[in-house]
Amino acid sequence: MDEKAVQDFYPPDLSHCYGCGRLNEHGYRIRSRWDGDDTVAVFTPETYHTSIPGYVYGGLLASLIDCHGTGTAAAAAYRAAQREMGSEPAFRFVTASLKVDYLKPTPLGVPLDIRGKAIEIKGRKVVVSATISAGGVVCVQGEIVAVQVPEGMIPPR
Amino acid sequence: MDEKAVQDFYPPDLSHCYGCGRLNEHGYRIRSRWDGDDTVAVFTPETYHTSIPGYVYGGLLASLIDCHGTGTAAAAAYRAAQREMGSEPAFRFVTASLKVDYLKPTPLGVPLDIRGKAIEIKGRKVVVSATISAGGVVCVQGEIVAVQVPEGMIPPR
Repeated sequence: MDEKAVQDFYPPDLSHCYGCGRLNEHGYRIRSRWDGDDTVAVFTPETYHTSIPGYVYGGLLASLIDCHGTGTAAAAAYRAAQREMGSEPAFRFVTASLKVDYLKPTPLGVPLDIRGKAIEIKGRKVVVSATISAGGVVCVQGEIVAVQVPEGMIPPR
Repeated sequence: MDEKAVQDFYPPDLSHCYGCGRLNEHGYRIRSRWDGDDTVAVFTPETYHTSIPGYVYGGLLASLIDCHGTGTAAAAAYRAAQREMGSEPAFRFVTASLKVDYLKPTPLGVPLDIRGKAIEIKGRKVVVSATISAGGVVCVQGEIVAVQVPEGMIPPR
């Protein structure tokens, strides 16, 4: 598995995301890495990230799918273009749509494995499917449609 | 509009949700109220709830749809059963699936209006559609399938 995460290569001005920005000290700082043709991230929720006592909050699970999904989209776009991760112009994606199926309640207190795969790359759009597992059991299945950040959204450098 | 929120009627042991539990001091404490046949909630993100600078984090927006959705499901279930809000046994829902379309980037720094409607009530399931608007402009459209908390998930009282 790669040591560096996709998010380590995001330009500083695009590294403030609450879910995955390495410069957001309040956020989750999700880190997504290649593992063969999949991408993986590991995240351990805090005890207060709960819904019903004992189980993980669904909004956090949606956030993990979301940010691991946009990270996977960026990594896959670099691979598809046969470009070095982090080379300019940067690939950075936002979410156009998100679908999450909560297959089973996700237990609190264990690390969660988030695993993604780019299933379609077309122009500025990448579709990513992802799962979240706890103790080897898939609890959540998700899919996002990610699109490259529109020019007008990027802050002036 | 009702003064009390749906979440004010949740039993204490089901009021720890990170998104909407009134007893979770770390959480968002979303409060959903009836407004005619719709439900509404207002939430102002913190500056660090960002994605790309200037815009709201998509995972938070998904969380707002999620928790306002389960709150709307509970309120609609009470109405459909012609029961007083908060009467026992409590209606409390979890999310089986969540779909969020990010129609436009959602600006940071303004209160967000979350508006929901129960579009189907059948057995233990309620389908809720919801929107999030900023300054009168709908930025996010979502839908959840909510199901009553399974007996086995409720902590012993």
